[in-house]
Amino acid sequence: MDATPTLIALLHGPDQPGLVARVASWIFERGGNILHADQHRDREVGVFFQRVEWQPAFSVAVGEGAASAAAKATAASHALADKSQGRPVDRAAAARDFSEFATHSLGMKVRMQSSDARPRVALFVSKADHCFHDLVLRWKAGDFPCEIVGVVGNHSDLREASEGYGLRFVQIAINASNKAAAELEQIALLREWGVELVVLARYMQVLSADFLATLGAPVINIHHSFLPAFAGGRPYHQAHARGVKLIGATAHYATRDLDEGPIIHQDVARITHRHGVEDLVRKGRDLEKSVLAQAMRWHLEGRVLVYGNKTVVFD
Amino acid sequence: MDATPTLIALLHGPDQPGLVARVASWIFERGGNILHADQHRDREVGVFFQRVEWQPAFSVAVGEGAASAAAKATAASHALADKSQGRPVDRAAAARDFSEFATHSLGMKVRMQSSDARPRVALFVSKADHCFHDLVLRWKAGDFPCEIVGVVGNHSDLREASEGYGLRFVQIAINASNKAAAELEQIALLREWGVELVVLARYMQVLSADFLATLGAPVINIHHSFLPAFAGGRPYHQAHARGVKLIGATAHYATRDLDEGPIIHQDVARITHRHGVEDLVRKGRDLEKSVLAQAMRWHLEGRVLVYGNKTVVFD
Amino acid sequence: MDATPTLIALLHGPDQPGLVARVASWIFERGGNILHADQHRDREVGVFFQRVEWQPAFSVAVGEGAASAAAKATAASHALADKSQGRPVDRAAAARDFSEFATHSLGMKVRMQSSDARPRVALFVSKADHCFHDLVLRWKAGDFPCEIVGVVGNHSDLREASEGYGLRFVQIAINASNKAAAELEQIALLREWGVELVVLARYMQVLSADFLATLGAPVINIHHSFLPAFAGGRPYHQAHARGVKLIGATAHYATRDLDEGPIIHQDVARITHRHGVEDLVRKGRDLEKSVLAQAMRWHLEGRVLVYGNKTVVFD
Amino acid sequence: MDATPTLIALLHGPDQPGLVARVASWIFERGGNILHADQHRDREVGVFFQRVEWQPAFSVAVGEGAASAAAKATAASHALADKSQGRPVDRAAAARDFSEFATHSLGMKVRMQSSDARPRVALFVSKADHCFHDLVLRWKAGDFPCEIVGVVGNHSDLREASEGYGLRFVQIAINASNKAAAELEQIALLREWGVELVVLARYMQVLSADFLATLGAPVINIHHSFLPAFAGGRPYHQAHARGVKLIGATAHYATRDLDEGPIIHQDVARITHRHGVEDLVRKGRDLEKSVLAQAMRWHLEGRVLVYGNKTVVFD
Repeated sequence: MDATPTLIALLHGPDQPGLVARVASWIFERGGNILHADQHRDREVGVFFQRVEWQPAFSVAVGEGAASAAAKATAASHALADKSQGRPVDRAAAARDFSEFATHSLGMKVRMQSSDARPRVALFVSKADHCFHDLVLRWKAGDFPCEIVGVVGNHSDLREASEGYGLRFVQIAINASNKAAAELEQIALLREWGVELVVLARYMQVLSADFLATLGAPVINIHHSFLPAFAGGRPYHQAHARGVKLIGATAHYATRDLDEGPIIHQDVARITHRHGVEDLVRKGRDLEKSVLAQAMRWHLEGRVLVYGNKTVVFD
Repeated sequence: MDATPTLIALLHGPDQPGLVARVASWIFERGGNILHADQHRDREVGVFFQRVEWQPAFSVAVGEGAASAAAKATAASHALADKSQGRPVDRAAAARDFSEFATHSLGMKVRMQSSDARPRVALFVSKADHCFHDLVLRWKAGDFPCEIVGVVGNHSDLREASEGYGLRFVQIAINASNKAAAELEQIALLREWGVELVVLARYMQVLSADFLATLGAPVINIHHSFLPAFAGGRPYHQAHARGVKLIGATAHYATRDLDEGPIIHQDVARITHRHGVEDLVRKGRDLEKSVLAQAMRWHLEGRVLVYGNKTVVFD
Repeated sequence: MDATPTLIALLHGPDQPGLVARVASWIFERGGNILHADQHRDREVGVFFQRVEWQPAFSVAVGEGAASAAAKATAASHALADKSQGRPVDRAAAARDFSEFATHSLGMKVRMQSSDARPRVALFVSKADHCFHDLVLRWKAGDFPCEIVGVVGNHSDLREASEGYGLRFVQIAINASNKAAAELEQIALLREWGVELVVLARYMQVLSADFLATLGAPVINIHHSFLPAFAGGRPYHQAHARGVKLIGATAHYATRDLDEGPIIHQDVARITHRHGVEDLVRKGRDLEKSVLAQAMRWHLEGRVLVYGNKTVVFD
Repeated sequence: MDATPTLIALLHGPDQPGLVARVASWIFERGGNILHADQHRDREVGVFFQRVEWQPAFSVAVGEGAASAAAKATAASHALADKSQGRPVDRAAAARDFSEFATHSLGMKVRMQSSDARPRVALFVSKADHCFHDLVLRWKAGDFPCEIVGVVGNHSDLREASEGYGLRFVQIAINASNKAAAELEQIALLREWGVELVVLARYMQVLSADFLATLGAPVINIHHSFLPAFAGGRPYHQAHARGVKLIGATAHYATRDLDEGPIIHQDVARITHRHGVEDLVRKGRDLEKSVLAQAMRWHLEGRVLVYGNKTVVFD
């Protein structure tokens, strides 16, 4: 396994001929080595999507216009040679340069991340602990490239467990009358912690549009149903009442429209008439854990691109 | 494999202690041998459900009150001995007797069938042929204990294929202005054919409440979505627009409320952003085939019990 | 939900007519109320299997031979009336009586358990902690009707985590030269703890035939492959080398023949060429957790019946 | 949907920096528009794999060395403009040119195909008809971009069905003594038919290494088990005897080592103790159909790359 850190770019914008070549050439001409490059075209709306991951070299000053394919290969070899001599790669600069290129030359929206970045994540919880334990244990097992920097609960049920894991826990109680103030308190806390991603691990509270707009960071939620079926509360009771033969769970980005955010991942489990509501809840817990963990991992690995109300997941 | 025909009873009614024992004893005391007996209690509504399948002996005239467990066993042995001597079993009488017992002594609703019955089935089709071919080929392969006695289409597209399989095909064109008359024509035809089950193999037309009430036989439909999500028309377009990660299909009994009938079977398939609507349609065809075929088999094997808007499937 | 404790009997033995009726009648005549009764016949080998679960009343002294069906119902009503008056049910006696009946009158092998029993369980672990945390957290969430009474590790890696959960941890180091002595130490410990079930949560050591025979209690193991494929060590490496498209996990009872014990549960996950061995290991961990947890739950609920090298799982 | 035919290249060879860029630039500089480009690196063996699909323009004579990124885009626009004026694209020449480039400049092995090619396919059958009907009906529904040019059976059971579909059927009976001669007859027939792919639709005969070498075209087989478990004959009987909880099917390229060829696709279905061997066979038929059809589609769409004994499937 080559552990050299990589740059990951997520691009999307108006489709046009040559995008794949122009991105690949830009990287290659600067001595970069592309490890993965996935792209997708949504032909209905004419949008191009790409996830490209590469090992950058130092910033090469090659006369681009003059470089034939052969010359490029030579330049690249030189770059690599230099790199092998230990001349440091300025990944931040490379990311900045690529971002500028993609934005201005290609007209793309771009999100960059480095494979050795460890975004700061906060978990929001309520009383249910299954997703909480699952995420923290996976994180401790090394499954998630991030730092979980704290836990916020509207109840205090998970304080002890959080602190047992060495995580700070802050209770911010929410009720009908204090919601706006409580959300301001949450925002202040998340800023203090430098949070770049919020994961709602069965938080059970709706976040206001104001909260989401002010936060300015993505929020991943797990909904305990196969959306759009059984949106809203008590979906297992609804599923049982309707007599469906499968139950599901849906991980999605939180948006101002409850249960309507872009879906990242979904899965289902088979049920029968023998299963009561409590069995559905139990089976649902397993679904919720695995679906939320998978969505969180894909997000952290820079595999999820949102456009409109949908996602492209480069898995 | 013991090929002796069996009786199958589907019971349901108010729960009460001793139902399992009373059913089993009734059968045993008459020399019957229970092969399968599945039951279910819905504790919320206090309803008992049972599917029991047994090899009946001739009608025994045992003084029930006098029979000790040991005596019963002896009587049963005699009955079996007799049976082994070739004295014919009157299964129709046994079914009648059991039905009377279950209805009057146990207060159950009961549906009886014999394992060697081959109910007469009509297929309703439109233009799409995938479920049609699938059902007919499975039937020819011996998967379905029934007789497919004819095909009814609102278009004539599947006439040639039907006749190629040796099945008669009748076109009854439906349009906005002739629906009531066309349904009367369908009813007359189904009666003439002696149809006991109608399977809508992508028929694409809504059956009126009048049709269903007049027909008096079950109708199984395949809906091309994971109900209740994306009910109604063009579900694959809806699924694509919403960006879901799984598509589904649902087999259900047709009721007057479109897409609301009791669900027999459901399944899903995973999709990604790479799949266009046409891919969803293609993947959906496979789901529709397998889900409808499974539902039809379970129905024909007497495994599906409807109550309220739900089913109990003794699989 | 009716929380009255129930008796569960697992029977198997030579098939004969009337078994279902005789079991049901025996229970009913003693005022018991059958909640679930599943049976299975293996026609190839002529063996009958049953799981029956019932709420016993007190031991009724009804003259069985004289009881007509009607009289039985009356007796049962009386029994229930008595029960409703609070006369205590002697479940231990009822279990003993049924066991005797099933053994001597029916010629069955029988295993009895009470729904409120909480068998004493020991976990055997090594260094990997995913199954360990998963089982303990599910147990704490109330998923498993048992008492986890201690953790035995051949390494000390999970001591702190065990004790953090309030579980005692004993290290018994195993190496090539001390295996027999170490196993004797384990046996002594398990007896001291009164252990009725051992779960190997990625224990990674083979138990000797002597250990299993001496222990006399069931041992459930999780194997990290879809047995019988890739039996033995390093199955994920083997799966990767062979280029299979699915990996699996198998929970089975440990027997003297490694990887050959009766299979309780299996599941698979889809993989692609993109997944390296380390991805297979990560995906495998999720499989191992869910498959082992499901097998353990089924065992604890008295749903698993072993015969020969196979299981009947009444799920 | 843009129906302009595309070129598809499957490349693999020693990994080296810049491959993605060099391929993309080669295509772009010749006015081609890349629609899909998937690649994979097997880091253990240092092999690079790519599937790239593009719409070629006419062969552009652009001075490559002089083309700046901007100039390239302009050239591409001109090419496209020309193309829109109807100047014909010589796809055969473009394929030849690319193949030469990939082979000589990049050191890759390359397989080219055009999206509007319809390879000539022969089905080999025996007595079982489920895969046969399934493949033919999917082909008639437009699922497979190929021509099924004939059916070869070692028995005559499927003659009538083949001819009913308008397909010629040739019986070449195989027995212990005539195998070599029969295979020569098959080879002659396949050459006469111009066959580019053979699909064994439950053919049940082993093809000799000589046959495979002489044929020189790929052969896809469906094995009725989850290989490598239960390789060889009667896998459903083996699965039943072992008491596994899942059965599977495996589509693979036929090689001289029976059951050892590169796996293209696999799937499983859940079974229980209730299922006898005949149920496994029935459920297995559904698996075999769907797994073989998927593998055949992936092959025809140029998504399967073989290396060593494994496949890379760009799905």
